[in-house]
Amino acid sequence: MTGATLYDHGLDRNPANHQPLTPLTFLERAAAVFPERTAVIHGALRRDYRDLYARCRRLASALKARGIGRGDTVAVMLANTPAMIECHYGVPMAGAVLNTLNTRLDAAIIAFCLDHGEAKVVITDREFARIMGPALAKAGVTPLVIDYDDPEYDGPGERLGTVEYEELLAEGDPAFAWAMPADEWDAISLNYTSGTTGDPKGVVYHHRGASLLAVGNVVAGHLGRHPVYLWTLPMFHCNGWCFPWTLSVVAGTHVCLRQVRAKAMYDAIADHGVTHLCGAPIVMSLLINAPAAERRDLSHRVSFLTAAAPPPEAVLAGMAEAGFDVTHVYGLTETYGPAVVNEWHADWDALSKDEQAARKARQGVRYPPLEALDVLDPETMAPVPADGETLGEVMFRGNVVMRGYLKNPAATEAAFRGGWFHSGDLGVKHPDGYIQLKDRSKDIIISGGENISSIEVEEALFKHPAVAAAAVVAKPDEKWGETPCAFVELKGSEMISAEELIGWCRQSLAGFKVPRHVVFTELPKTSTGKVQKFVLREMAKAL
Amino acid sequence: MTGATLYDHGLDRNPANHQPLTPLTFLERAAAVFPERTAVIHGALRRDYRDLYARCRRLASALKARGIGRGDTVAVMLANTPAMIECHYGVPMAGAVLNTLNTRLDAAIIAFCLDHGEAKVVITDREFARIMGPALAKAGVTPLVIDYDDPEYDGPGERLGTVEYEELLAEGDPAFAWAMPADEWDAISLNYTSGTTGDPKGVVYHHRGASLLAVGNVVAGHLGRHPVYLWTLPMFHCNGWCFPWTLSVVAGTHVCLRQVRAKAMYDAIADHGVTHLCGAPIVMSLLINAPAAERRDLSHRVSFLTAAAPPPEAVLAGMAEAGFDVTHVYGLTETYGPAVVNEWHADWDALSKDEQAARKARQGVRYPPLEALDVLDPETMAPVPADGETLGEVMFRGNVVMRGYLKNPAATEAAFRGGWFHSGDLGVKHPDGYIQLKDRSKDIIISGGENISSIEVEEALFKHPAVAAAAVVAKPDEKWGETPCAFVELKGSEMISAEELIGWCRQSLAGFKVPRHVVFTELPKTSTGKVQKFVLREMAKAL
Repeated sequence: MTGATLYDHGLDRNPANHQPLTPLTFLERAAAVFPERTAVIHGALRRDYRDLYARCRRLASALKARGIGRGDTVAVMLANTPAMIECHYGVPMAGAVLNTLNTRLDAAIIAFCLDHGEAKVVITDREFARIMGPALAKAGVTPLVIDYDDPEYDGPGERLGTVEYEELLAEGDPAFAWAMPADEWDAISLNYTSGTTGDPKGVVYHHRGASLLAVGNVVAGHLGRHPVYLWTLPMFHCNGWCFPWTLSVVAGTHVCLRQVRAKAMYDAIADHGVTHLCGAPIVMSLLINAPAAERRDLSHRVSFLTAAAPPPEAVLAGMAEAGFDVTHVYGLTETYGPAVVNEWHADWDALSKDEQAARKARQGVRYPPLEALDVLDPETMAPVPADGETLGEVMFRGNVVMRGYLKNPAATEAAFRGGWFHSGDLGVKHPDGYIQLKDRSKDIIISGGENISSIEVEEALFKHPAVAAAAVVAKPDEKWGETPCAFVELKGSEMISAEELIGWCRQSLAGFKVPRHVVFTELPKTSTGKVQKFVLREMAKAL
Repeated sequence: MTGATLYDHGLDRNPANHQPLTPLTFLERAAAVFPERTAVIHGALRRDYRDLYARCRRLASALKARGIGRGDTVAVMLANTPAMIECHYGVPMAGAVLNTLNTRLDAAIIAFCLDHGEAKVVITDREFARIMGPALAKAGVTPLVIDYDDPEYDGPGERLGTVEYEELLAEGDPAFAWAMPADEWDAISLNYTSGTTGDPKGVVYHHRGASLLAVGNVVAGHLGRHPVYLWTLPMFHCNGWCFPWTLSVVAGTHVCLRQVRAKAMYDAIADHGVTHLCGAPIVMSLLINAPAAERRDLSHRVSFLTAAAPPPEAVLAGMAEAGFDVTHVYGLTETYGPAVVNEWHADWDALSKDEQAARKARQGVRYPPLEALDVLDPETMAPVPADGETLGEVMFRGNVVMRGYLKNPAATEAAFRGGWFHSGDLGVKHPDGYIQLKDRSKDIIISGGENISSIEVEEALFKHPAVAAAAVVAKPDEKWGETPCAFVELKGSEMISAEELIGWCRQSLAGFKVPRHVVFTELPKTSTGKVQKFVLREMAKAL
């Protein structure tokens, strides 16, 4: 340890040279520099940056007047609407913490989240009154309830609270002098993981990380100047990968979308000149499987960031043909969304289509604002060799990793053991340093002492032209301990027998990896579209 | 003040979720992800990112082995060469602080800088031995002297030290495990201001600010993927506006250039596909006034960031015709280079050419990573009205403002008075929030109690087709206190009388602003190309 140097005296932080990092200033800048640019499109509605900023300040001011301040949780149950964008700014401008609730969850889990996060305010779209009503009845907390009655929604759902969102905004000051966070480490949002088992965990984001990931999206996503962004990714999911804040960095346009439907997506892309969108594989499926009547010819290329599962070759080909350039990213709620990106090399364009798909299936390298990404042996914390084969746990380190799990020090400590965030995902590191997921720790199948990657078996099944979706889990077996059991969705009119599929797998897989059982069924999914393997495990056990 | 909230417990910083911001990790990432992309071009030399990173680690390792560590100053006297890029990484990777010396200064000032910065090491290009030799003889410090013998330089200059740069690198470890800075507030570099009077002041940058401005350049400069950047801006000037670090963010290519000459620039742009460059107005002059034999037809548009003086209409037109899109930026050594950018609005393209030039002459709005920019009354610290007329002092606040002046607490305190960095530049704020410089405080001319902006008079002179350059200063006057005195450089073959020019000014300026004297002469400039108004003031006094 060296002592003080000449640089350690008289060069301290002061308000002129040190300000907390926060994404809130991005909107202030966009509104100052590009006040008349369209910030939000929603149905027939158009709002420019001047209006968006004024509305966010109204929201912050109205919340503050009702006693909301630093560290208070404001829970919102909203679709991808203008109010949801405004909450991403207005709530933290009041010093409060935005808790975006997953609108697909049931009342019991929502009640759990409201209680656990100690919600002081709930802002709820009328569409979700049927869930929020029972959730509020069940919850112990008694938050101020604000209804959002979106003119674009004309379905059922009563009002639950005493004040409507527009009424609340009318109470606020459009020139409200909001304060910067006291510290960039202050919480900006709370995101509950949609755990497949057990209680959800409350992931806490801070202003520093949200600011850095928001700018990182500009760099990694090559957003350019004034992009037009279509909201197909739910904003309740990792704060929409921080894109609600990213768009202000580049004074882009948010195109809202209450529901992800093929026709609405094509219309928005063609009519508003959408340049970028994000989403799970299901969004790509909708786009490429849309009937001709719902499609539109696109005069421009569109960037699509996808996560959650590697895009198969056929999907990539379909997307390219439909006008989309797909980039594969990967991350977790704990990493603010995307923290890994499949950086594409120009010379890979010369590879064969299936080699390109194989490259694109890899999750990739660290996102620009992430300081470190590696695949480590979770016992020894030593990096695995970069051989593309040795399994280890994918781990993250850096400023776009969560502060921790709210009121859960044990889980927080376990997640950060050894100075890395443990993702729980198993993967390999290729010789070029790109990582590739192989399985969740708990999804590995151990048969006769050999590890079987369920993803590897699923990939073999996927390659069969009749297979639309497949998931493989362990089935308890007296002799082998476990054997792979496949659950398969077939494409529309396809017919194939279990024996044929098993024979197909035998051509490319080692014998012990070939599924012993194949079940044709629709795959159960979580609200965020993840296959619920714990359900399949129960089904496999019961076979 | 509210008390602790539920977010204030059990969610602390740890190595998994908090790492110091630093631009050093940008190079590590570029080398890991794009090892084979060309990082540096210099004459016939090509180095990829793998090599660049290995050489930077060698440099850090060799410096460390020679006892250099945290807070030690490494001074470099280098042209825009590969070694200069490597020093921007290798020196701070050793924990040390990079002091880039202005190669145009004289030995006395260099000696002052070496002593004031307590240089432990000097790395000096053989070309500058004629300055560095006497400077070292004069200086009190006795640093380790390392010569850089650039193969692209074949002029005179002896070696001054005991080890050559390549020999030093050979001592180092290409896999050196450099450490992150202990704190992102740690110094990364030291830049002496080229003050027109008095001793230079040592401006200290930190890792946090360098990281944020480097990424900010990607956003503000629309760098896109893999830009090719031509080094026309001296890297000794504000660390080349942080572009040595920026290029790693986007795995771009540095094209080195020892001397700024028109033919070399056109050749580099055409041969290497240069996409971006930066520089003072003199660089634009060279480009648009180059003889046909030195020019090349460009098949692509090139982005040019210019600072130091508003680009006149004729220059903008010439640049556009030659293939360059000009963006006007503004900043100071104290703000890491550009901290203000003339953000262009698409609808301004429809304005007349002179209206466009008038828009482009404004310095603009805050750079994305700067938190606040304003024009304030330095007495009351109140913002001036946004009327485009009321003069105030341009002030900055944010993370891309220096830590302070080294060993100069009085100057530091004065610069940060009232929680803002005082630029010393006078300007106005237009109704749309864009700022425009009107003068340096000390350059204002006060005639008969009326303030005269020397810039306004200079602009009037510039508009005359015979004028190549002009500078206006105060001449003491018994009756009026001061009167404007103009110094003018004419274009090559032009001839015009002082009376004609005064008549010209009378057409557009109020009578009291019209120069009473016009002197035709070459303008004296500082090493960074700024007109030395203090010299002109002496000349005016002596008239």
